[in-house]
Amino acid sequence: MPDSDVDRSLTIDDFAVVRRADTRWADNDMFGHLNNAVYYQLFDSAINGWVLEATGVTTGALSARGVVAESGCKFFREVGFPDAIVIGIRIAHLGRSSVIYELGLFSPVRDGDPDPAVAALGRWVHVYVDPAAGRPVSIPEPVRSLLELTAAFTRA
Amino acid sequence: MPDSDVDRSLTIDDFAVVRRADTRWADNDMFGHLNNAVYYQLFDSAINGWVLEATGVTTGALSARGVVAESGCKFFREVGFPDAIVIGIRIAHLGRSSVIYELGLFSPVRDGDPDPAVAALGRWVHVYVDPAAGRPVSIPEPVRSLLELTAAFTRA
Amino acid sequence: MPDSDVDRSLTIDDFAVVRRADTRWADNDMFGHLNNAVYYQLFDSAINGWVLEATGVTTGALSARGVVAESGCKFFREVGFPDAIVIGIRIAHLGRSSVIYELGLFSPVRDGDPDPAVAALGRWVHVYVDPAAGRPVSIPEPVRSLLELTAAFTRA
Amino acid sequence: MPDSDVDRSLTIDDFAVVRRADTRWADNDMFGHLNNAVYYQLFDSAINGWVLEATGVTTGALSARGVVAESGCKFFREVGFPDAIVIGIRIAHLGRSSVIYELGLFSPVRDGDPDPAVAALGRWVHVYVDPAAGRPVSIPEPVRSLLELTAAFTRA
Repeated sequence: MPDSDVDRSLTIDDFAVVRRADTRWADNDMFGHLNNAVYYQLFDSAINGWVLEATGVTTGALSARGVVAESGCKFFREVGFPDAIVIGIRIAHLGRSSVIYELGLFSPVRDGDPDPAVAALGRWVHVYVDPAAGRPVSIPEPVRSLLELTAAFTRA
Repeated sequence: MPDSDVDRSLTIDDFAVVRRADTRWADNDMFGHLNNAVYYQLFDSAINGWVLEATGVTTGALSARGVVAESGCKFFREVGFPDAIVIGIRIAHLGRSSVIYELGLFSPVRDGDPDPAVAALGRWVHVYVDPAAGRPVSIPEPVRSLLELTAAFTRA
Repeated sequence: MPDSDVDRSLTIDDFAVVRRADTRWADNDMFGHLNNAVYYQLFDSAINGWVLEATGVTTGALSARGVVAESGCKFFREVGFPDAIVIGIRIAHLGRSSVIYELGLFSPVRDGDPDPAVAALGRWVHVYVDPAAGRPVSIPEPVRSLLELTAAFTRA
Repeated sequence: MPDSDVDRSLTIDDFAVVRRADTRWADNDMFGHLNNAVYYQLFDSAINGWVLEATGVTTGALSARGVVAESGCKFFREVGFPDAIVIGIRIAHLGRSSVIYELGLFSPVRDGDPDPAVAALGRWVHVYVDPAAGRPVSIPEPVRSLLELTAAFTRA
């Protein structure tokens, strides 16, 4: 990931796709904020929900599966139930069989804090795999077209 | 809980309060539908989110804690990510220190099925407890007023 | 479920099968104890883990799926991470296509409390369903034999 | 993180601390293996469980909180319920207020595969923070002593 000072200056306008998500009571841990594993549930749902809606193709109908090869997150500000969350998605790299997403997690104003800065920054590597052979394959259509279009937007 | 045939005939109009909720990719189990424990996360969040918003009082600011003494759910129809969920809340019984909620879980049209029938019916007993003494206490204001108002609506 | 005073007097010796389970940091909610939805994850895992190990048959290899038709839990005492948990399983009713389990959740000594009493009591209805037709079918072998043997032990 | 070929050659003997953990039925996603967010729940529990047991000090009793500033994971091999998991912990860097852990996730033999290679490799940054001021502080005793001892073992 790039330098942390650059990371923290990101706003929702830096992301090609914007998704909304709920938080749950059980998401908060003993410290009263979202447990760190929950961010990965939210990123996973944002990416998969967006691909499903934008392509109209359900996961099982694709010839290849998008498997998580690597994930990561930097946590800058606390977020917690009952806050609603906004997640921005952009494409950092698009390869033949894999795609690297960057995800910005934003929360609405809370406790009088109107800061629009990113609360957490995720990184996500999906590799498309033939479920039978277990080997990487080309990202299948119509997912590839969606990712190419989005990657072009990200660069602009 | 009452007879199952009655349960299955409930619609969203039978509930005093209506809340919307997201599903997550990780909610689906190996069978491709919501794992049964997720329903309880959704019920918990619906009740607590509603009480927080309607009273404007955060959980930590109350003199007593609403602790779950009993919960239960009947599952009638499959629900799964990426479906959005609608949860209805009504009050089956309001006592001095405890409240029994009934929760109807509904999902939007899916796979061409426009059935408005309830997908799952939950039951939830909150007992208000003094955190230090660990003993039941009267439901604190302003929660009590909210529950009395809602119980009146439920009976109507 | 039977009368609550009877419930609370149950001990681990009242259960035919005993399983051990871990708790996780993320299981604890803002009140510092297990979120109530976690109990259902633990019950699900205890039942499915036991059936898998005792029959040697993986879930996907069976001709029918055990689907949760109803679940419920009464919570008597707090349990929390990092405590290890012990779960007792017994069979309350065995039908042609369905089985009703009762589950006792016990935790080891904590905070100087050596009480061996049950911390939570669950109820779980599995209905075996043909995944294609979506209709109840007879509980498949070798699950049926395992359940009959266990039900006999429960009655003894 | 270092080069992936080096990562994949790690074995449990490369880790100073070894912890056992269960998997749960609900951990498996639609692809029949552990959802990636679950790995973070397991890492969190391994680190916090170890620190609690080794120091005998509960989280609330410390003058500072260990907050996750960054986490990440590379996934090499599938793991899934009902497999038990083994997690190795080692210290990659120990600073004044922060510690960087590396975590190796191993699973027992499955489907006839006796490969002892690491299934996933995690990275975890805990920063100790004064909960009132929200600022980094020195890692409190007795956690610091435990981490220094473990870091010495890791280097050896």
